[in-house]
Amino acid sequence: MASEHTAKAFDSDLQELTRLVAEMGGLVERMITESVDALIRRDVALGKRVVAADIEIDSLQRVIEERAVLTIARRQPMAIDLREIVSAMRVATDLERIGDLAKNMGKRVAALESDFQPLKLIRGLEHMTDLVLSQVKSVLDAYAAHDLPAAMNVWKGDEEVDAICTSLFRELLTYMMEDPRNISFCIHLMFCAKNIERIGDHATNIAETVFYMIEGQQITDKRPKGDMTNFATTVPGN
Amino acid sequence: MASEHTAKAFDSDLQELTRLVAEMGGLVERMITESVDALIRRDVALGKRVVAADIEIDSLQRVIEERAVLTIARRQPMAIDLREIVSAMRVATDLERIGDLAKNMGKRVAALESDFQPLKLIRGLEHMTDLVLSQVKSVLDAYAAHDLPAAMNVWKGDEEVDAICTSLFRELLTYMMEDPRNISFCIHLMFCAKNIERIGDHATNIAETVFYMIEGQQITDKRPKGDMTNFATTVPGN
Repeated sequence: MASEHTAKAFDSDLQELTRLVAEMGGLVERMITESVDALIRRDVALGKRVVAADIEIDSLQRVIEERAVLTIARRQPMAIDLREIVSAMRVATDLERIGDLAKNMGKRVAALESDFQPLKLIRGLEHMTDLVLSQVKSVLDAYAAHDLPAAMNVWKGDEEVDAICTSLFRELLTYMMEDPRNISFCIHLMFCAKNIERIGDHATNIAETVFYMIEGQQITDKRPKGDMTNFATTVPGN
Repeated sequence: MASEHTAKAFDSDLQELTRLVAEMGGLVERMITESVDALIRRDVALGKRVVAADIEIDSLQRVIEERAVLTIARRQPMAIDLREIVSAMRVATDLERIGDLAKNMGKRVAALESDFQPLKLIRGLEHMTDLVLSQVKSVLDAYAAHDLPAAMNVWKGDEEVDAICTSLFRELLTYMMEDPRNISFCIHLMFCAKNIERIGDHATNIAETVFYMIEGQQITDKRPKGDMTNFATTVPGN
């Protein structure tokens, strides 16, 4: 930092960026909850609201990107300060993708015309969503608090979500085999389950960003993954 | 630019960034071709090579991001110069996602155990891939040449891909209804068709980045989309 003045200006820029990321995170968390609620309750109007909410997410990402870039150009931060700004941009990119995935689920609500809705499936989907949502919340808290151990907990927790997704896919495949009238409905749920799994992947990405922000290097450990070997040859969850 | 020296240093940084994006683009184009070839020919080894190639893509994205950020911090570019750098980062982000989507197709090759492989489906998949690949190539050329009309052509061409994807989904659904033994195979192809469609979406994103780079503002026209109204209520292509 060139001077105290620049340092203060930088801190204020950074605070504003962090605030925007937190705002975006809150909105994205709500989109996740509402998209799955809409799916389960077949609430088409709620699904449409989730789709509409994505516009705000996209625009917040652009704002964060623009402000981050201007901050870098104006304040010329180095080392940790520069990493803070880059991290805000990265987190915003992941949040934007999460928004897209929730929006995609919101869109599917209107397409679910079958009455078929086995309780076991719903429970599985709810359980998976609860897990993923708590990962997203925890990793955003870890990001805000610069809490590396908390971020690493999220990073390690991805396996459980993958396992539930695998088991949901198996179940959906069984329903499809049993009765062709279930196929269309089950495919929508497969895409939704896949979307929720991908939201979990983005939480893991954010955990890696927290690692980079604090440690100053990319994480080199291999990302933990549920064993999909068996699964890959039987149902399409890759 | 503060001085001639800075201007030259900036130009050299920018050239290097553009070169890296072009390199990444070439690798990603090859991943798209090879992943679909691997799917169609059931070439598991080729599928694995595509999966392995994604590591290089991820690392190139990080390199581009780091260099872009350092260039902004060191050279403090403004206006068009700043937009050039931001655009390189954005294009790299889209290319990284395209790499992920090709990798996902590469992974699925090993899971396609059925012998079932109707020619019509293969032709549809090939046609869709050809279209999307030519979109990716054209938009990367448009980006390199700062050719806004060429980028806008890609931006408008997304509808045709969506229409082929819709028709592929209908066909796949029919095969699934006819014989439950086709279900697992067809679901893999649905996810692949969806991936190819999403690659097309990323080409459209890159076209929007070219617009932003040249015009200095975000594109405000609504993105053209095939009419999915009917489709949405029958098959799961949302």
